[in-house]
Amino acid sequence: MQRICVDMDEVMADTLAEHIRRYNQTFDEEITPEDLAGKGLWLAAPQDRQAQLRAFLDAEDFFEDLPLMPDAQEVLRDLAARFEIFIATQAMVVPNSLGPKYRWLQRHFPFVPPAHYVFCGDKSILRADYLIDDQPRNLNLFQGRGLLFTAPHNVEVTGYTRVNNWQEVAAYFAGVE
Amino acid sequence: MQRICVDMDEVMADTLAEHIRRYNQTFDEEITPEDLAGKGLWLAAPQDRQAQLRAFLDAEDFFEDLPLMPDAQEVLRDLAARFEIFIATQAMVVPNSLGPKYRWLQRHFPFVPPAHYVFCGDKSILRADYLIDDQPRNLNLFQGRGLLFTAPHNVEVTGYTRVNNWQEVAAYFAGVE
Repeated sequence: MQRICVDMDEVMADTLAEHIRRYNQTFDEEITPEDLAGKGLWLAAPQDRQAQLRAFLDAEDFFEDLPLMPDAQEVLRDLAARFEIFIATQAMVVPNSLGPKYRWLQRHFPFVPPAHYVFCGDKSILRADYLIDDQPRNLNLFQGRGLLFTAPHNVEVTGYTRVNNWQEVAAYFAGVE
Repeated sequence: MQRICVDMDEVMADTLAEHIRRYNQTFDEEITPEDLAGKGLWLAAPQDRQAQLRAFLDAEDFFEDLPLMPDAQEVLRDLAARFEIFIATQAMVVPNSLGPKYRWLQRHFPFVPPAHYVFCGDKSILRADYLIDDQPRNLNLFQGRGLLFTAPHNVEVTGYTRVNNWQEVAAYFAGVE
C-alpha cells in the first residue's frame, strides 16, 4: 500500500482564514485571500505588524478551532481505504500548536490513527511515496513525489505538480494504483 | 552526512526512573530497575494498578523534568558534528507529553534544532540511516539500521545490534564514516 503524507495548515485546515480574521479584527482591515495572491499575509502586512502576526499564531487558542478546507474530510476518508495516510505538520515553530493540533485532528479526522500523526519541522525526515503540501520548500526537502496544494502565497510558483483543491487531489489519486 | 534518529524515553531521558519513583511513592513499594529485568514496570505491576501506571504518564508534569541518561548530552553533542541528528519520539500515545517533551529537549539538547524534533507514532515514517531505540517494535518498523538501547524491559531480547549505554553508542559511531 502506498503512503501519502498530508500537510495540515492551508491543506487540511484553513489556517489562513483564521489568521486573516484576527488580523482584520485587530487592525480594522478588510484583507481577503484574493488580496494575498503571490505573497501571503506575511509579505502583505507592513513591517510593524509582523510581531503581531506571529503573536496570533502563538495564542493558545489559535489552532484549536480552525475551519476545514472544503472536501478534505470526504476525500481523505476515501483515500484512507486505498492508501496509508500520515499527517505531517510543521508544529515545531509554534510549540503552543502541538496540543491543539492533536485535538483538532482527533475531532475532524477520527479515521486517521494518532500513530500516523507526525509533528515535525524538516520534512526530509518523511519516508513516504507522496506529500501534499502548500510550501514549495517542504516539497523540495521531501524525497518522494510532491503535490503542491494551491494557497494564495504559492499561486505564482511553477515547476510543481499542482492540486488546486481536494477534488483535484481525489482526481489525481484516482489514477494511482 | 548520514542521519541518526534518536528515541527519547529510556534512551535520552530516564523515563523509567520517574515512573518507578511515582509508583513506589504511591504504592509504598521499593521496586528497582533491576527488579524489572525482562519485563518492565507494566508487566511487573499487578492488574489493578495498570490504570494508575498509565495515569502517571498522563499527568501534566510527568515529562517536564525527567532525569537525563548518563552521557547522553556529551555523546550526542559530539555526534552532532559528524551526523545529522533527529529526535524521534512516540509522543502521540500521551498527548499531554507534547509540550513538556518540546521544552525538555530545548533545555537539555539546545544543539539540536527544533526542526529536527519528530513527534510521531509509527516509526516506519522515519527516513534516516540509523535509529537508536529501546523498543524492538520500533526497530522492526524502521527501514534503516536499528540499534537497540538497553533497558530493563529488553535485556532478554536477541537479534538486534545492542548498545548498553551512551559510551557504547559513541564507540559504535566512532567506526562509522
